[in-house]
Amino acid sequence: MDNFKTPFKGVIKDAKGRLACYKEDWISGLCSGIRLLAPTAYIFFASALPVIAFGEQLSRETDGSLSTVETLTSTAICGIIHSILGGQPLLILGVAEPTVIMYTYLYNFTKDRPEIGRKLFLAWVGWVCIWTAILLFLLAIFNACTIITRFTRIAGELFGMLISVLFIQQAIKGVVSEFGIPKGEYPTLEKYQFQWLYANGLLAIIFTFGVLFTAMKSRTARSWCYGTGWLRSFVADYGVPLMVLLWTALSYGVPGKIPSGVPRRLFCPLPWESGSLYHWTVIKDMGKVPVAYIFAAIVPAVMIAGLYFFDHSVASQMAQQKEFNLKNPSAYHYDILLLGFMTLLCGLLGLPPSNGVLPQSPMHTRSLAVLKRQLIRKKLVKSAKECIKQQASNSEIYGKMQAVFIEMDSARTTSFVDKELKDLKEAVMKFDDGEDVTDKFDPEKHIDAYLPVRVNEQRVSNLLQSLLVGLLVCAVPVIKMIPTSVLWGYFAYMAIDSLPGNQFWERMLMLFIPSGRRFKILEGDHASFVETVPFKYIATFTLIQFVYFLICFGVTWIPIAGILFPLPFFLLISIREHVLPKLFSPRHLQELDAAEYDEIIGIPSRTRSLSIREREPPDHDSLEVL
Amino acid sequence: MDNFKTPFKGVIKDAKGRLACYKEDWISGLCSGIRLLAPTAYIFFASALPVIAFGEQLSRETDGSLSTVETLTSTAICGIIHSILGGQPLLILGVAEPTVIMYTYLYNFTKDRPEIGRKLFLAWVGWVCIWTAILLFLLAIFNACTIITRFTRIAGELFGMLISVLFIQQAIKGVVSEFGIPKGEYPTLEKYQFQWLYANGLLAIIFTFGVLFTAMKSRTARSWCYGTGWLRSFVADYGVPLMVLLWTALSYGVPGKIPSGVPRRLFCPLPWESGSLYHWTVIKDMGKVPVAYIFAAIVPAVMIAGLYFFDHSVASQMAQQKEFNLKNPSAYHYDILLLGFMTLLCGLLGLPPSNGVLPQSPMHTRSLAVLKRQLIRKKLVKSAKECIKQQASNSEIYGKMQAVFIEMDSARTTSFVDKELKDLKEAVMKFDDGEDVTDKFDPEKHIDAYLPVRVNEQRVSNLLQSLLVGLLVCAVPVIKMIPTSVLWGYFAYMAIDSLPGNQFWERMLMLFIPSGRRFKILEGDHASFVETVPFKYIATFTLIQFVYFLICFGVTWIPIAGILFPLPFFLLISIREHVLPKLFSPRHLQELDAAEYDEIIGIPSRTRSLSIREREPPDHDSLEVL
Repeated sequence: MDNFKTPFKGVIKDAKGRLACYKEDWISGLCSGIRLLAPTAYIFFASALPVIAFGEQLSRETDGSLSTVETLTSTAICGIIHSILGGQPLLILGVAEPTVIMYTYLYNFTKDRPEIGRKLFLAWVGWVCIWTAILLFLLAIFNACTIITRFTRIAGELFGMLISVLFIQQAIKGVVSEFGIPKGEYPTLEKYQFQWLYANGLLAIIFTFGVLFTAMKSRTARSWCYGTGWLRSFVADYGVPLMVLLWTALSYGVPGKIPSGVPRRLFCPLPWESGSLYHWTVIKDMGKVPVAYIFAAIVPAVMIAGLYFFDHSVASQMAQQKEFNLKNPSAYHYDILLLGFMTLLCGLLGLPPSNGVLPQSPMHTRSLAVLKRQLIRKKLVKSAKECIKQQASNSEIYGKMQAVFIEMDSARTTSFVDKELKDLKEAVMKFDDGEDVTDKFDPEKHIDAYLPVRVNEQRVSNLLQSLLVGLLVCAVPVIKMIPTSVLWGYFAYMAIDSLPGNQFWERMLMLFIPSGRRFKILEGDHASFVETVPFKYIATFTLIQFVYFLICFGVTWIPIAGILFPLPFFLLISIREHVLPKLFSPRHLQELDAAEYDEIIGIPSRTRSLSIREREPPDHDSLEVL
Repeated sequence: MDNFKTPFKGVIKDAKGRLACYKEDWISGLCSGIRLLAPTAYIFFASALPVIAFGEQLSRETDGSLSTVETLTSTAICGIIHSILGGQPLLILGVAEPTVIMYTYLYNFTKDRPEIGRKLFLAWVGWVCIWTAILLFLLAIFNACTIITRFTRIAGELFGMLISVLFIQQAIKGVVSEFGIPKGEYPTLEKYQFQWLYANGLLAIIFTFGVLFTAMKSRTARSWCYGTGWLRSFVADYGVPLMVLLWTALSYGVPGKIPSGVPRRLFCPLPWESGSLYHWTVIKDMGKVPVAYIFAAIVPAVMIAGLYFFDHSVASQMAQQKEFNLKNPSAYHYDILLLGFMTLLCGLLGLPPSNGVLPQSPMHTRSLAVLKRQLIRKKLVKSAKECIKQQASNSEIYGKMQAVFIEMDSARTTSFVDKELKDLKEAVMKFDDGEDVTDKFDPEKHIDAYLPVRVNEQRVSNLLQSLLVGLLVCAVPVIKMIPTSVLWGYFAYMAIDSLPGNQFWERMLMLFIPSGRRFKILEGDHASFVETVPFKYIATFTLIQFVYFLICFGVTWIPIAGILFPLPFFLLISIREHVLPKLFSPRHLQELDAAEYDEIIGIPSRTRSLSIREREPPDHDSLEVL
């Protein structure tokens, strides 16, 4: 294992690489001007809503020990730190579902133990974070990120499916809970009388399905026939937060005769209440945790460190896919080191830590690519128009455009740029220099299709969106107006929205298609395995994966040992390397379970957004007015 | 006007034509055997559900004077009479929405007039029916059916749109009414306390949208990827009644603590209660109606006669479209005469009259065409297989099949059949007589595509489905279990399901498509006018039609004069003939508003079923087990 012989090698290399472009990261961000607000707003909404939802989930599961205030605070603090000090500024941080699940197990473990109990919960979790941070430091120092490629598609898909199922489970549990009295409330209150509980439950069903249905519809807005492009892009990009807003507004339409508290709304303390201020003193309580528990904290720490290592690296990798043509270097090792520090900080403040999130990170890169494209296009069109005014020949026009492009993208060699601009050159040259007006080169029309992909790599958009999340903490009184049932609808939406693009899911659906209709799959978009692997192998592979999925899901139901739920995913590495090759031919396995991460589109949760966006990049004209 | 010079000409011709094939109508029905039950069941469900829904609507609007019992009874009686004595046995009869609207106006007119009041309502309506019957007799005798071609597409579309909007209005009014106390009930009952009214309203929203959503989904089942063909056909053909059943079952899942009566269910008296038995004595009350009112009844009678004349003839025409290749003659004039008698009978019994309904009538013909196809295919395959066994040549095989086909379809000349079988002949001949097994003619595979359309023309399926509707009258205690909100969902479903295929609706949507995206219409199925008529003329025509639609809809809101709502449709004949040609060029008008009825697919209500079915005929294998 070479990794152990050269500690700090990866971290130092990453740090050097990023230092070289650090100043540029800020300058190019600030130079983008007001247009940068469009991707900022886009990512802010995509990032804030799940964090609010997870906060509510956490609040239920930990009897209010942690809530939306803490998840928002953690997301904001970690986001700000990462955007300033982080290696890859395109990576978006946030409190994610695995963290919530882990914290739920930790809470259930502590609450029945009088030595810790609810009182010392955050202090003990502080210790878990300390151990997690140490483990992350070790992983970073000993260059562990090189092994991330051994997680294959099967692991990513199983993980994504598990998250989806947990979301659905949360949505169902949430809606069912609306018919009951919440834990720790006085059952004699009017709103907890049977008739109002029942009305609350029915309202919850309406709001949940309403949010789910309208959010799913709004996501497809880009392909609608009706309305202007501006409107369709706006609805497709911001439809989900808009629907949350709409249904929250509708929830105030209930008659005044209904007791307040129906429909039930988000429960979270205000950030300036004593419950929230307690976080500043968590560190003082950490000494009170019994020594045995301090060491017991290593077990969850191993799991969390493994999870974070996996999640953070994959999110970072997805934000830097080859297709994005990034010019600045990656910084996997350094980012894991920084993640360790942030986890430590969150632990000491009694906050749930944040890590790199999907699908927001690649969404961020993609929206910046669209922005850069608009900037490049504008400059090239301008230069070409000037040339045309001076009646320059097509080759002169192209020469001028090339010069402008190279000026904008000074980091790359001219020969590389030449290769990329080859298509554009051909396109310009093919137009006749002659008289025929209809066949003249029109920069407005003809440049679009041939622009190479460039991303506006900078730190400003990430910093701004983190600051906005920070501002949301002050807006908690407004957030509290959201009905809980709207969030259950949002959970269901996240689950269903994440399924298309997950090949595991698509293979499961395939099993239900009668053989006579399978040609329909071939007619649409489909992965290559459909054609190359015989159906019986696809079916066997899928059934094995399904059984393994049931095991993974089953583990989450075990009361305390459930904390080991990431274990089956780690085990999968060796199952994939030693068991599966005995059951399937290498060629089929290669098709069904590609080993390289950059081939994978459908990894963890909510990936549909990703694959849709790949076909149709977001259009931020809609926010230019900001 | 030649029509007046030759009274009875049409009726006599019709009667002679149908008498010639009357015996055959019964024999061929009985010979079809058990398979005839599939189309029978299909049409029974498609016919019974709206009649139940209209019964509930009528019951609300007439304060229970008429209800589902009466609409079912009328449909059954008229259906049985028509299937035995009617001219065109493919025509399905039933109480339709225009009848319900008319009866609502009549009721509102009488209830505030002490001379008639609720008590003499049915007696007075009996007089309206008598006048209507007289007018229908006159229309039949003086061969009025020849003028039906002067109603153009614009009239059919407006009428269809009006019915759709009235359905939506009924659905909305229905759901809103679930939050209030029904007229004439004691507000002190527990179920009418605010909290239970509110719960009832919320349940209504859930059931209404549940039925609407699941019914719409089930209608598209035929194009699903998943499930066997059997299952998909079954869901597509019987999905809507299944969903009504499903949601009715779900409505019994409410907790026991809720007072009975929440959710609200269908209100109708049992057929053996005194309220229903009163119908036998309506005729005795008719003498008590003041003479002035007897003559006033002529006004609504003119409207109803016009409506019935229009609706009945169009439904009949749709059931006998050219594409169906019917062999028996039409009987428009005779059927209007018979409709007059049935209207008279219903009036004397105090029942709302039935008339020819859309889209059930063409659905009936189409399902019988599928059945006939199966029978023909079976016999041809059998004969071809026998020939193949005897190692006959391809021309011998074809000769045998032709003989079998002609034997089954003795009504037509051999030369006509030859022309129709041309494709089949070519298909059989093109196969090599030689050794190559892969290229051999396989009757199971190769006959399907070349069979000409034949309809199993008979009276048995119509009689059976009418008898089943009659049996439903005894099943009223079961029907009463359906929640009213399920019916509101069904109304909304009928409205939305009828819109696609209505060109007026599609042209209105077109106005919202930005010009850059209009090519999308051309990519899909589209009517020819999209290509041939400039957009500005389409837009003008559509706006004029929309304004006229608003006028028609506005008339229905006028308290008593609303009864004149068919008037604008009759006026449309002269507007179409005298005003529109001044605004549009004849060529464009021809494209936008075809004058021939058999060109029209999207006439009155619920026509989507029709156009879908045309592309994908129903498959009754699913009911072969019956």
